Amino acid sequence: MADTLQKLETVIRERRVGDPALSYVAKLTAKGRPKIAQKLGEEAVETVIAALSGDRAATTSEAADLIFHLGVLLADLDLSFDDVLAELERREGISGIAEKADRAKD
Amino acid sequence: MADTLQKLETVIRERRVGDPALSYVAKLTAKGRPKIAQKLGEEAVETVIAALSGDRAATTSEAADLIFHLGVLLADLDLSFDDVLAELERREGISGIAEKADRAKD
Amino acid sequence: MADTLQKLETVIRERRVGDPALSYVAKLTAKGRPKIAQKLGEEAVETVIAALSGDRAATTSEAADLIFHLGVLLADLDLSFDDVLAELERREGISGIAEKADRAKD
Amino acid sequence: MADTLQKLETVIRERRVGDPALSYVAKLTAKGRPKIAQKLGEEAVETVIAALSGDRAATTSEAADLIFHLGVLLADLDLSFDDVLAELERREGISGIAEKADRAKD
Repeated sequence: MADTLQKLETVIRERRVGDPALSYVAKLTAKGRPKIAQKLGEEAVETVIAALSGDRAATTSEAADLIFHLGVLLADLDLSFDDVLAELERREGISGIAEKADRAKD
Repeated sequence: MADTLQKLETVIRERRVGDPALSYVAKLTAKGRPKIAQKLGEEAVETVIAALSGDRAATTSEAADLIFHLGVLLADLDLSFDDVLAELERREGISGIAEKADRAKD
Repeated sequence: MADTLQKLETVIRERRVGDPALSYVAKLTAKGRPKIAQKLGEEAVETVIAALSGDRAATTSEAADLIFHLGVLLADLDLSFDDVLAELERREGISGIAEKADRAKD
Repeated sequence: MADTLQKLETVIRERRVGDPALSYVAKLTAKGRPKIAQKLGEEAVETVIAALSGDRAATTSEAADLIFHLGVLLADLDLSFDDVLAELERREGISGIAEKADRAKD
């Protein structure tokens, strides 16, 4: 499972430059970054609603949609999942989480 | 980088059951699922706004927050990143993406 | 313009109980509260994106969608715009805004 | 209750140009449009979560926060609630709602 994100990213980067008539990723990318960002926001709302319903299968499916569209958005900024994982890695030690706790608000 | 999500998940699962006074994850978890879901929604909004500003460092940071809080929410439903990656893996073939394209709306 | 919200509310309440095949409000309401809430969340995302693009006509249109779906959601909880306006009225004095400022975070 | 939105708008427009140390509206406005938009998105998420919990008082309060921050965002684009209400008024007839139903997706 470890390289699923890498494979997903490869697929997204290949399809970005494909035919919008044949590929969802190409079609969404062609609509521009605001539309990609909008889809990310919508998938987050759907994940929130699935989680609050307590439906584990629906939450899994919506979380997959969320990750997928995050990948499309990252690619549009020429960023990768690895950039995000490196940021998480950087924070992951005690200090990182403690820093996070410090800026916890409510 | 491949196992960053697994390490993140281990950290989250350990801290969930920790002291809310010492751990952000424990504190957020103690507030209940609606509050965790709210944080996920907020981080998605921040990711959208960072991406639209074109700020790559801010987008990376907000995407890391988004993944982090997705992990906290998944754990609260006793789901793992592996469940979500398995769902993405299942969809990743030509058929999966074609199916996604079929239900593309606008 | 003063009674537009009242008229909108009357329309929403009439159509809620209409034929889902003929009325968008009836159709959305029949899908249940999570779906209505999802639409509110999506319209908020679209309002955010329109505002960040600086497109005044698009922002006006998305804000109208947002208010419209807020009305559908409020009606589903047997709440009215008047309930929300009464809450705003209650806060509107110096004290209310000051209290708001006190809890401002970042 | 009819003129609550007008009063709210007057308050917002007065405070926008006030001292950020004394006024929440001035402080938020000084942070720039992305931060105002972020707050709107966050309040929408909170409204969604309150509505799904079925808590009518919390939903009323979050909906008030949502309308309030929509007012701050509209003012930042030099738009008014009247612009949005005029758009709703324009759509409100049979034709407007029918058009809305036509573009209903799922």
